[in-house]
Amino acid sequence: MPRFLAMHAHDVRFPTSQTLDGSDAMNPDPDYSAAYVRLVTDADDGLEGHGFVFTIGRGNDVQVAALQLLESRLVGRDVAETLDDLGGVWRELVHDSQLRWLGPEKGVMHMAIGGVVNALWDLRAKRAGKPLWQLLASLTPEEIVALVDFRYLTDALTPDEALAILRAAEPGRAAREARLLDEGYPAYTTTPGWLGYDDEKLARLCREAVAEGFSQIKLKVGGDLADDKRRLAIAREAIGPDIQLAIDANQRWDVPDAIRWIEALRPYDIAWVEEPTSPDDILGHAAIARAIAPIPVATGEHGANRVLFKQLLQAEALSVLQLDATRVAGVNENIAILLLAAKFGVRVCPHAGGVGLCEAVQHLAMFDGIAVSGTTEGRMIEFVDHLHEHFVTPVDVRDGHYYAPKAPGAGTEMLPQSILEYSRGE
Amino acid sequence: MPRFLAMHAHDVRFPTSQTLDGSDAMNPDPDYSAAYVRLVTDADDGLEGHGFVFTIGRGNDVQVAALQLLESRLVGRDVAETLDDLGGVWRELVHDSQLRWLGPEKGVMHMAIGGVVNALWDLRAKRAGKPLWQLLASLTPEEIVALVDFRYLTDALTPDEALAILRAAEPGRAAREARLLDEGYPAYTTTPGWLGYDDEKLARLCREAVAEGFSQIKLKVGGDLADDKRRLAIAREAIGPDIQLAIDANQRWDVPDAIRWIEALRPYDIAWVEEPTSPDDILGHAAIARAIAPIPVATGEHGANRVLFKQLLQAEALSVLQLDATRVAGVNENIAILLLAAKFGVRVCPHAGGVGLCEAVQHLAMFDGIAVSGTTEGRMIEFVDHLHEHFVTPVDVRDGHYYAPKAPGAGTEMLPQSILEYSRGE
Repeated sequence: MPRFLAMHAHDVRFPTSQTLDGSDAMNPDPDYSAAYVRLVTDADDGLEGHGFVFTIGRGNDVQVAALQLLESRLVGRDVAETLDDLGGVWRELVHDSQLRWLGPEKGVMHMAIGGVVNALWDLRAKRAGKPLWQLLASLTPEEIVALVDFRYLTDALTPDEALAILRAAEPGRAAREARLLDEGYPAYTTTPGWLGYDDEKLARLCREAVAEGFSQIKLKVGGDLADDKRRLAIAREAIGPDIQLAIDANQRWDVPDAIRWIEALRPYDIAWVEEPTSPDDILGHAAIARAIAPIPVATGEHGANRVLFKQLLQAEALSVLQLDATRVAGVNENIAILLLAAKFGVRVCPHAGGVGLCEAVQHLAMFDGIAVSGTTEGRMIEFVDHLHEHFVTPVDVRDGHYYAPKAPGAGTEMLPQSILEYSRGE
Repeated sequence: MPRFLAMHAHDVRFPTSQTLDGSDAMNPDPDYSAAYVRLVTDADDGLEGHGFVFTIGRGNDVQVAALQLLESRLVGRDVAETLDDLGGVWRELVHDSQLRWLGPEKGVMHMAIGGVVNALWDLRAKRAGKPLWQLLASLTPEEIVALVDFRYLTDALTPDEALAILRAAEPGRAAREARLLDEGYPAYTTTPGWLGYDDEKLARLCREAVAEGFSQIKLKVGGDLADDKRRLAIAREAIGPDIQLAIDANQRWDVPDAIRWIEALRPYDIAWVEEPTSPDDILGHAAIARAIAPIPVATGEHGANRVLFKQLLQAEALSVLQLDATRVAGVNENIAILLLAAKFGVRVCPHAGGVGLCEAVQHLAMFDGIAVSGTTEGRMIEFVDHLHEHFVTPVDVRDGHYYAPKAPGAGTEMLPQSILEYSRGE
């Protein structure tokens, strides 16, 4: 009976601030980093479970310390039993009363649990010989519901309602999987739009994005209104009228400022406005959404937990839900959020980029398209062309689509050489 | 020109789980702990700034790691300049883009900033030779407004509105300070009400609380409805009809459960219901508040930041705001929350207990009573009679009142012997 032997945590940091990749109105100089975790067992198969929390530099060591605290919760456990009850493991970790005090269910400790949960899913998928999206999409509705903690959700979504959603999507699963394998999942690109890029680079990258088959690009805004207008004009000119143009303020504004600023950018035919204000401000997002309609409000990459997403949906504060693979407590909580989105009929366009977020979140979007919402209508996964070379199974993005990964696992495994080269303190 | 020399962090844990002090429906066995910080300067006065983040055990080391990360932000700085611009320091720490990613503005990293900010205030008050409440109450409205970051608040409270609130309270400051020094600030006690106590101990502690002059006691509920009814009956019998009886569910319920459960407890004449559900659930609290009216909803001890409190007030989701000294980013953010409460006309009854929370939060309540809301009407500071013996200036609670501390500082300094005896890993 194989058991967990150890959990190794690594403080992996890439010096992206040197090139201003990833620069926006709130994050001028990020160093894309991963608080990275490897779960090791004594099984003969030699398989490891890999997961991480994405950060942007300073504090990655604190995130690693939070991961390390969780090692004792897994070491010595039976591997098969643990992986067969990831709903139970999730509850045990998230509801540990002493750890919970450090959030509750938010910030460093909650994200650490997410990193470990994702590593457990990586191992489970590898042992099953399937990519995570396919493993999840092969579970019965009952098995999926058992993964979700409905605590604090039942005023918006009950287990029975979740079951009904999943059962309604069951008949078409095989056809949708075949279509996914054939056509891929739609993507959009943020590569052209970082604030630190000059106008020429912006225009060139916009043209390249269209040539590469993307039907939407996204620009960072919120630093300076005149700059935003100029950059939007350049982008619109470069991409033409038929490509969608979204903007992302990265939480830059107060509510009244957001409404005024977006009003000034309305002429550029905005596909959505992302993170107009504090990610915690449900009522603020709702006020902005009402004021700027019909321009959609998008948010979620900094959404701390399912309770926040529940309220954003209840308040009609967003119309594009941006799932993030490592902000909440891993795959299980993201399934809860996908079910909430399906209940409220809101489209999910996951946040990605950073390091490894594309590799990770595609599995959740593909699972959603097959087995939860059962559609890719209006949905796209964000794509940024950075740092994929550090992963064992980098994303396959062509013709504006993510092509479904076929390798077993959750996509979260970094190359040993990259871990070694970019780790601190080892 | 004195400079900051070092910041020492200590992992201080008291084994309170052995006696079930502090046990409630969500936290069965807390070990009251402090991620404790000491700021050392090279000034001749030998004064240190002390602050802490309260936790309940596991994870206190992660909280300490977050504090340690902040040392480099202070060491080498001019002490006087730093302490004269605590509004600026707050903004610099909270809006550090890389650290902000770890919240944003919530959880371990945000609380760490709060611990450091509180230590800076402790030092500033000691250097001024005043208790913190008196120092704050001696600042001009303009100086107070400069301490507050209005980012994400201006749809509910602008700097001008804050100034108007503070100016309106200016004329009566001296009289209210004299009255505070004479009569103290009202307190209520949670000492009798922990879930882990048997019925006999509950009844005895209730009688003692009345004898000690408290006009409100609070009971933990939410474990089992039949137990709650029995314990409320015992408490009501012991305290008589004239003493107020509040209940605290510590986030135990979903929204529909909360409404049903509280309805069943209505006959016991409930003074308020505290933390009925997830502290993040603004809309849930609002739904509960509407359903159980006129019983007041109280919450706040787990409120992550000023954006959450803004919304709780906007949504009329609470009618008792429970300020906590170490959950948000310290004194500055708590001043923002006091101003929000004053704007919305909601009473503030701070959370205390734990270790050192009574010592710390009394300063904020007293400042509020003198210079912000300008009233103590309906207001009380929580009191729990645990662990005060570890502090240099323990609270002075008599006749159901907190008597104003007179020693310079923020009340947050622990005895060296206690730090030594209860610290880990040193």
